[in-house]
Amino acid sequence: MSLLFKHLRVHQVFGANTDVGKTILTSGLVRASAAKKNRVFYLKPVSTGPIQDADDEHVNRYAGPHKALVDTHCLYRFDEPVSPHLAAGMAAKKAGARSVIVPTDDAFITSVSSYIRKCAAGTAEKSHMYIETAGGVHSPTLSGTTQLDSYRPLFLPTILVGDSRLGGISSTISAYESLLLRGYIVDSVLLFKDQYYRNWEYLGPYFAEHGVRVSAVDPPPPREAEPSRNFLITEEYYSKLAANDHTGGLFGVVEYLDERHEERIKELYSMPRRTLDTVWWPFVQHGLVKGEGDVNVIDSAWGDHFTVFNGHRSPSPSTPSAVVTGSLLESQFDGSASWWTQSLGHAHPALNLAAARAAGRYGHVMYPQATHTPALRLAERLVHGGPGKGWASRAFISDNGSTGMEIALKMALRVASKQFGFAPQERKKIGVLGLRGSYHGDTIGAMDACEEGVYTCEWHQAKGYWFEPPSVGIKNGRAFVKIPSAVAKQKDVEGQPLSWVYNVSARLDTALASAYRTHVNGTLEKLAGSATPLGALVLEPLVLGAGGMVFVDPLFQRVLIDAARSRGLPVIFDEVFAGLWRLGMHSAAPLLGAYPDVAVYAKVLTGGLVPLAVTLASEDVFRAFEGENKADALLHGHSYSAYAVGCEVANAALDLSERVVRGEAWRAARAAWEAVGEGEEGGDGGAAAPAAAVWSVWSPQFIDVLSKLDVIEQAMTLGTVLAFKVRGGDIGYQSHSAQAMLKTLGDATVGGTSHDVTSAPGGAPFSIHFRTLGDVAYFITSLNTPPATIRAVEDRIWASLGR
Amino acid sequence: MSLLFKHLRVHQVFGANTDVGKTILTSGLVRASAAKKNRVFYLKPVSTGPIQDADDEHVNRYAGPHKALVDTHCLYRFDEPVSPHLAAGMAAKKAGARSVIVPTDDAFITSVSSYIRKCAAGTAEKSHMYIETAGGVHSPTLSGTTQLDSYRPLFLPTILVGDSRLGGISSTISAYESLLLRGYIVDSVLLFKDQYYRNWEYLGPYFAEHGVRVSAVDPPPPREAEPSRNFLITEEYYSKLAANDHTGGLFGVVEYLDERHEERIKELYSMPRRTLDTVWWPFVQHGLVKGEGDVNVIDSAWGDHFTVFNGHRSPSPSTPSAVVTGSLLESQFDGSASWWTQSLGHAHPALNLAAARAAGRYGHVMYPQATHTPALRLAERLVHGGPGKGWASRAFISDNGSTGMEIALKMALRVASKQFGFAPQERKKIGVLGLRGSYHGDTIGAMDACEEGVYTCEWHQAKGYWFEPPSVGIKNGRAFVKIPSAVAKQKDVEGQPLSWVYNVSARLDTALASAYRTHVNGTLEKLAGSATPLGALVLEPLVLGAGGMVFVDPLFQRVLIDAARSRGLPVIFDEVFAGLWRLGMHSAAPLLGAYPDVAVYAKVLTGGLVPLAVTLASEDVFRAFEGENKADALLHGHSYSAYAVGCEVANAALDLSERVVRGEAWRAARAAWEAVGEGEEGGDGGAAAPAAAVWSVWSPQFIDVLSKLDVIEQAMTLGTVLAFKVRGGDIGYQSHSAQAMLKTLGDATVGGTSHDVTSAPGGAPFSIHFRTLGDVAYFITSLNTPPATIRAVEDRIWASLGR
Repeated sequence: MSLLFKHLRVHQVFGANTDVGKTILTSGLVRASAAKKNRVFYLKPVSTGPIQDADDEHVNRYAGPHKALVDTHCLYRFDEPVSPHLAAGMAAKKAGARSVIVPTDDAFITSVSSYIRKCAAGTAEKSHMYIETAGGVHSPTLSGTTQLDSYRPLFLPTILVGDSRLGGISSTISAYESLLLRGYIVDSVLLFKDQYYRNWEYLGPYFAEHGVRVSAVDPPPPREAEPSRNFLITEEYYSKLAANDHTGGLFGVVEYLDERHEERIKELYSMPRRTLDTVWWPFVQHGLVKGEGDVNVIDSAWGDHFTVFNGHRSPSPSTPSAVVTGSLLESQFDGSASWWTQSLGHAHPALNLAAARAAGRYGHVMYPQATHTPALRLAERLVHGGPGKGWASRAFISDNGSTGMEIALKMALRVASKQFGFAPQERKKIGVLGLRGSYHGDTIGAMDACEEGVYTCEWHQAKGYWFEPPSVGIKNGRAFVKIPSAVAKQKDVEGQPLSWVYNVSARLDTALASAYRTHVNGTLEKLAGSATPLGALVLEPLVLGAGGMVFVDPLFQRVLIDAARSRGLPVIFDEVFAGLWRLGMHSAAPLLGAYPDVAVYAKVLTGGLVPLAVTLASEDVFRAFEGENKADALLHGHSYSAYAVGCEVANAALDLSERVVRGEAWRAARAAWEAVGEGEEGGDGGAAAPAAAVWSVWSPQFIDVLSKLDVIEQAMTLGTVLAFKVRGGDIGYQSHSAQAMLKTLGDATVGGTSHDVTSAPGGAPFSIHFRTLGDVAYFITSLNTPPATIRAVEDRIWASLGR
Repeated sequence: MSLLFKHLRVHQVFGANTDVGKTILTSGLVRASAAKKNRVFYLKPVSTGPIQDADDEHVNRYAGPHKALVDTHCLYRFDEPVSPHLAAGMAAKKAGARSVIVPTDDAFITSVSSYIRKCAAGTAEKSHMYIETAGGVHSPTLSGTTQLDSYRPLFLPTILVGDSRLGGISSTISAYESLLLRGYIVDSVLLFKDQYYRNWEYLGPYFAEHGVRVSAVDPPPPREAEPSRNFLITEEYYSKLAANDHTGGLFGVVEYLDERHEERIKELYSMPRRTLDTVWWPFVQHGLVKGEGDVNVIDSAWGDHFTVFNGHRSPSPSTPSAVVTGSLLESQFDGSASWWTQSLGHAHPALNLAAARAAGRYGHVMYPQATHTPALRLAERLVHGGPGKGWASRAFISDNGSTGMEIALKMALRVASKQFGFAPQERKKIGVLGLRGSYHGDTIGAMDACEEGVYTCEWHQAKGYWFEPPSVGIKNGRAFVKIPSAVAKQKDVEGQPLSWVYNVSARLDTALASAYRTHVNGTLEKLAGSATPLGALVLEPLVLGAGGMVFVDPLFQRVLIDAARSRGLPVIFDEVFAGLWRLGMHSAAPLLGAYPDVAVYAKVLTGGLVPLAVTLASEDVFRAFEGENKADALLHGHSYSAYAVGCEVANAALDLSERVVRGEAWRAARAAWEAVGEGEEGGDGGAAAPAAAVWSVWSPQFIDVLSKLDVIEQAMTLGTVLAFKVRGGDIGYQSHSAQAMLKTLGDATVGGTSHDVTSAPGGAPFSIHFRTLGDVAYFITSLNTPPATIRAVEDRIWASLGR
């Protein structure tokens, strides 16, 4: 987690390379800060190289005459003058294998974070802290992760010590770009004035273009062989960097860093008001936003957590955390996976590098009748190896799920029009079949494929018929299927394992399947007599997302698909939310034992970085638009269709996802569900088999106890999704009952358990950001959220429910 | 422009820093390539430092025993061992100011490119070329631009020489990331095996993760003082790097580079077929795609040009270029500005860095009820200082122009419903007022705001009334306004300067204005009696884009706005295509002398990198959704709403655009139009003034002669847009007449003039990619396309028309 204190300004010092004067300039900054009567903390988390001085001398070296105001600290010290990862290895070898424990990145960051918090809590004076990293920006730290990735969770403002030697322009700019690729705030570039190479003269205007100030100071005098003489000239040099009259040397830098610190805090305090004055949020009733405290100010994000500002909420009693830790920033678990988009964590370096690579090579280039590698690879992998495997022949790439669904609808409606020979006026009224509670996006065409409801706008005209869906849930530790009386006069299925419910092929011969068929076919026969011709079946397989996280009986969806197919209706799968492993599987098609004709993917397609959608289509659908006449083509396309950045990020996200899916955490989660009698592999392989469908990253024990609570009407989970309906209060989308019941999740200090210590990076307490759909609360993790974090979130939910 | 030859493999060698062994390893590669009987070209474009040897010795040094097979060349040589930009400066000083001419980036790249092309043309043998850059990746070259930006137009595959010293892990990775930010293909990382620091052991697996192979070779022996002894041990060292038996040393690297070269060519040849097999293009009738030759394979892009593969088109007679230059890649001017998106050129480093910075800091984060700096800044600048200035109070951010327009429609329809108290069933039928030929995007709601037409799909239901618009054009050097007989029984206005047409405030008192008012008000009175209630006026100010680049008489639009306003109808400006300086102005509002209630911006909003849209709204519109009830809110939002990357790129694009708009090229273009009596400032300032509206980056002389051609029915230009209608053939969207008439633009070698030499980067011939709308051809530049390029395109168009 990132930290920010009013009284304690913290900067990390990165070097453009080793031996660029990082230690000298940091010492100078320490002394200049101290000369101005600030309390100063100097932290060197990892030190390598011969240990020249004991702790006292160490302070002397950094603090000079200001010893009383300066604390110095080192967390890990090695005497070999090599990269930390090698130093740790050598030390381990020397000491005999396992006696030197190399900290994990998490443990390392926790140590640094603890030190910062301890220093902040230990003083109320105006203080400065300088954290000196080791080597260059990308030098490996103890675990082997490079430094700027390793320090990234702390997201500290940065001083980059530039290289004043020949070649130093290049290494300084490259180091800056590496910092920038991790989003760091670089407050200052600092380097020596080498009078021959004069790098600072070039770098000054260069960085000014990037809004970064460059400061240059005289280089230190050459080292003298005689120690006392050397001490004297060194002290003389430092006395110029941090002179008694507080002018020249590094004082300008210290003052500038103070200003940047204050501006940053001022900016954060101003953001809620300015946002309320200018922004129109999606899906928010601004009239219900009570004030600045209701604005979530996200300063940065990393992995599964936001770092949010809390200054505008203090001293509200609901967030005593700000008082306790003193930090104006706190960790917040991104419990809705940022509106269902995150699947690999925020700011994942591999996705960011993919975006940079494509932007650098192409920018965005024209797509119609053109091709480029990122788009072609994405199309091929989705069609041949991804969710399109076995049925799709074409990929149509667009910008978001809603446009992807409009494209899908245009495809299916054309197929139906040709198939059934609809007249022009009939075509405008073609209806779709769907499920009550479906949601396919916010554009008006996508909405017309849904019933009238709270989301709909003036022009909405529901076109179709929507079945009341039987739904799946867990209560008292067992799965049930709730059967609406309109569907069948039959008691709900109860007391089954979840895996039984999802073994669709095994259930095709049951009495319930027959009842479903009778209902569906009967309804379709009745509809055949109506004025609305039917053109497509449009389904969100397995779960109605925006409709309230309703898990639909997959058997009912299979029966619907079979019925639609037998009548020649094309079938659309809207897997915008649920596809690509969100529910633990690539696509629901294998589980349902039925392929679609058209299917749409978005959200997690890019791992949660940038918008993109893909509509996959079968060869028959494609052929319905092929001809000699341009007007018969699918005349739909957005300017940024298949933009290179989006496609390249999607390729990287799919690569990473495939690794996670085969990884240890998923294997362990599957095993946990198997251990309680769920998640068995079933069927005979291929499309008809329920491919180990029933498991979740959420623990079966947690679901079990949750589903036994009185206040919980039902719970449900698959893959990364957990949803539960609370009892009491209003029902439906406008209800606030789930929000109210879980409100303590918004607080970083309530309900903490031992898990907290390992869950938010840096070991700090964290709050949970979550969304509700009326009386339904849901929580969604990334594919790679660490199990310890998920356990911590479970504990927090449990505590929040008053347990 | 980028180059690629089958017989000549070219690699540029970048260094992670100076003094990392770039020259030694390049010499080794030269010798290893030669030892395998390849012809080898070694180019050191810029050499600094003491000149130790004459040309002959130079060859000796690089080629050793393989002299007969190796050519070496240096383009610029300086004897000071400093960064090239300083060396050039020092040399100039020594020689007396101006006698040393520092080449521009263009001239520099042209020299390098000419050398490559000369070598390629001079041999048919299998050849290798190594181009050794100076210093590190970001060391400034002669002009002061850093090397990897300077070389970027050539987009050559890269060998990165890594740093084997302490700190070298960091500098090697950072240098790689700087290369990656420019999109470079890095084929290999090459470094010395330093046995103490062992950087290669770390870098090997690190780069394997990024698909880059690391090779390490023994370091050279220490330098001996005695020259002949030094020569001997150096030659001995080289003889190991490039041994006679073709094993060990650098042979593995040479073979791997050969493989990469062949794979790249193979991939390019395979792309057209694979694309035809898997991709479904937007707005393309696949049935009219005749084969692989119709697929534009875009290998990279830079500035205003694509680099496209031509191998699959040879030996087609229409592209003899492939035969002439021998390059499988050629430059292609992006004449549609990649579907109207580009405004700052492809792969602009500042936009790419903005994308990287936001991705690194946030990834994408949740937006509803949250805020982050990139979104807030974007909202504020558009509302307060941008096109929203003077009327807007809120920014609603979404993903593309079509969704931005759906949001605008939802806003306006709600305002009208409340204003006029429409009943629920009436709301579904609210009509809009618009112009015939309007187009507002491809989603079905946006299409319903347009008439039935070629673009519409099954569900389309035109809701509204569309006026036949009077249009503006230029014929025989003078502007005219064509008045449809339905609008007024009046002769077309002819023979006026264009600036007269656009001086709306001055024309408000004319007889034509009265005639427009009579027509508009009469029509609206008739409509008032119909069953369709009217809810909004929806306009593309000044130009109907997709409707055929029809420039509408601004006076007519103003009259419409006044009439709508007087009836209480909200007014939507769809400035998705034309706004943000595309037509030389921020927004058309000042020219029209009327503000909208809602306005939409997209396309150039991000400078042409990633999708984003903003819908601006007035405070009254915003208040229409405010209340205590969530269901009354604007329930529209896409998952990636206001994603940080898009917003940050938009901020950077707007920053850059504001600079271009105030820059010399725009000033000169305005002056050129003023010189022919156009473009005068008029009015009294403020919203009512035509803010120097009538000018274009296209030359007035070119428009003049173009408009006098028999084959041209009319021409028109504003800002960056040039459009002309050709005579003959079919009319309308499905016509191919404009495409047919201009077909030679697709050829890189036809119609070349002296301008060509300076237009495509690297001085190579170029083709022009352009789109037509039936019988209308149009060409769109970026805001910053160099005037010389525009002149060259004008010449090419002229030549293509048979002049």
